[in-house]
Amino acid sequence: MAWGVEAKFGVVQGDRVFALKGSVFDRFEPGDELGPLQEQKLLAPMLPSKVVALGLNYANHAREMNLPIPAEPILFLKPFTSLVGPGDKILYPEMSKRVDYEAELAVVIKLPARQVPVERAHEFILGYTCLNDVTARDLQAKDGQWTRAKSFDTFCPVGPWIETELDPGNLRVRALLNDQVVQDSTTSQLIFKVPEIVSFVSRVMTLLPGDIIATGTPPGVGPMQKGDRIVIEVEGIGRLENTVA
Amino acid sequence: MAWGVEAKFGVVQGDRVFALKGSVFDRFEPGDELGPLQEQKLLAPMLPSKVVALGLNYANHAREMNLPIPAEPILFLKPFTSLVGPGDKILYPEMSKRVDYEAELAVVIKLPARQVPVERAHEFILGYTCLNDVTARDLQAKDGQWTRAKSFDTFCPVGPWIETELDPGNLRVRALLNDQVVQDSTTSQLIFKVPEIVSFVSRVMTLLPGDIIATGTPPGVGPMQKGDRIVIEVEGIGRLENTVA
Repeated sequence: MAWGVEAKFGVVQGDRVFALKGSVFDRFEPGDELGPLQEQKLLAPMLPSKVVALGLNYANHAREMNLPIPAEPILFLKPFTSLVGPGDKILYPEMSKRVDYEAELAVVIKLPARQVPVERAHEFILGYTCLNDVTARDLQAKDGQWTRAKSFDTFCPVGPWIETELDPGNLRVRALLNDQVVQDSTTSQLIFKVPEIVSFVSRVMTLLPGDIIATGTPPGVGPMQKGDRIVIEVEGIGRLENTVA
Repeated sequence: MAWGVEAKFGVVQGDRVFALKGSVFDRFEPGDELGPLQEQKLLAPMLPSKVVALGLNYANHAREMNLPIPAEPILFLKPFTSLVGPGDKILYPEMSKRVDYEAELAVVIKLPARQVPVERAHEFILGYTCLNDVTARDLQAKDGQWTRAKSFDTFCPVGPWIETELDPGNLRVRALLNDQVVQDSTTSQLIFKVPEIVSFVSRVMTLLPGDIIATGTPPGVGPMQKGDRIVIEVEGIGRLENTVA
C-alpha cells in the first residue's frame, strides 16, 4: 500500500511513522512502517463531532481581557469546519481587521463521556494535542457572543499529533509569532484543571470519541498579519506551525 | 425489507411514507412504501455536522430580553449531541432551575455553501423544519456566553420532517405549552430573513449538506416543568412535540 496518498491514522515513534493497527479509540499498535516523519503530510489528528473550548481559564489572561475570573468554566464551541492541520494556512477573513492567536493545550476524548466524576476523567482521555484558538478579536467584542469570532474556516489549527502518554498538570504552553515568544505559561496556571474540565463538560453534553476540548489560553494574546508564521508549542507534545494568508 | 427497524430517510406524501430513492441532497423520489405515517418512529430528520443558531432575530423578543436589536446576526452553535427527534424527551438538567422553550423555523442545508450571495441562497437550501432551541435561562444569564445554556443533551428537538417545498417569508411560528399558545408570530417579523441568514453564516463558516440553521425565536419564551408537553408548530411544516422529563 502506498503511503501519503490516503488519510489514515499513524503511530509516531521517534522520527518514524507506522500505520495504526487496531482502533485509535481502543487498543492499537504500530503496523507497517509508512516512512520517515518529515516525509508525511500531517492532517488535523482527529475529526471531532465537536470542539468544546473554555474561555478565561488562566487568571492573568482574564485580567488582560478586563474580564472577571469565572466561578465555573465558560464554554463555547468551534465548528468542525474551522479545523485545519499542521502547515495549513489560517485564512484572514474579510469581516475582521484583528485576528489573534491563542495557544492552548487540547484534550482528545477516547470514550463516550457523560456525567463523568473528576477522579475518573483520565479514563475518558485518549491524549493531548496543541490547538490554536484563532479569534477575530474585533468581532468578539462587537458580538458579545464569541461564536462568530471563533468559527471562521481555518480558525482551529490542531496537531501535530496526539500524545497519549502525558501528565497534563504542568506543561509549558507557548506561542511563537515569527520566532518571537509571545505567550509563555504552564498548565499549572489553569483555573480549572483537565480532570475538572472533562467532568464539567460531560455534565453538560455527552462527549464522543474524538471530541476535542480546548483548555483555554494564557496571557499574551495578540494580532497576526498576513504572512505571519505562528507556532503553538506544548511541552511533551510538539510544535503546531501555521501561516496566515 | 422490514420497515421501522432501521433508520432511513423516507418521503412523506399525505399520510403515507415511502423509502427515499436517490440522494436526499440531490435527486430523490418515493420508493417502496414503508407504511402509514402514524406507524413510523420519526427521528431527528437530519444528523448535521453543525447546528448554527441566531440570537435575538425577532425585534420584540430582543425587547423582552432587555437586549439591543443586533446590527448583524448574533450566532451561536448547538452541539450534535443536543439533537433529539419528535416525541423524544427533553431532559431537565441538574445544573439548571429554569429551562425555556424557544420555537424556531430551521433551515436545512443541501449543498456545501461558502460565501453565498443573498440572491443565490435558495439554491443551497434543502428545506425547512421546526426546532426547539431549549435554553437553560438561568445559566445563559450567569455565563454571559450562551453555549452551556443551549448545549445540554436533548436541548435541540428538531422535526417532524423537512418540508422541501416552502416559501419561508411569512410562516406562522407558534409554541404550545400543554396546549396553551405561548408563542405566536410569523417569520415576516424576522430581522434577518432566511436568504440573508444563509449568506451571512456562509461568509463565516462553510455550511455542509445537512447542516441546520435555527433562525431565532419570537417573543413569549418561558419556562417548562417536568411533565410538560411542548409543541413547536411552523405553518406549512407541521408539529414537533416533546415532553420534559
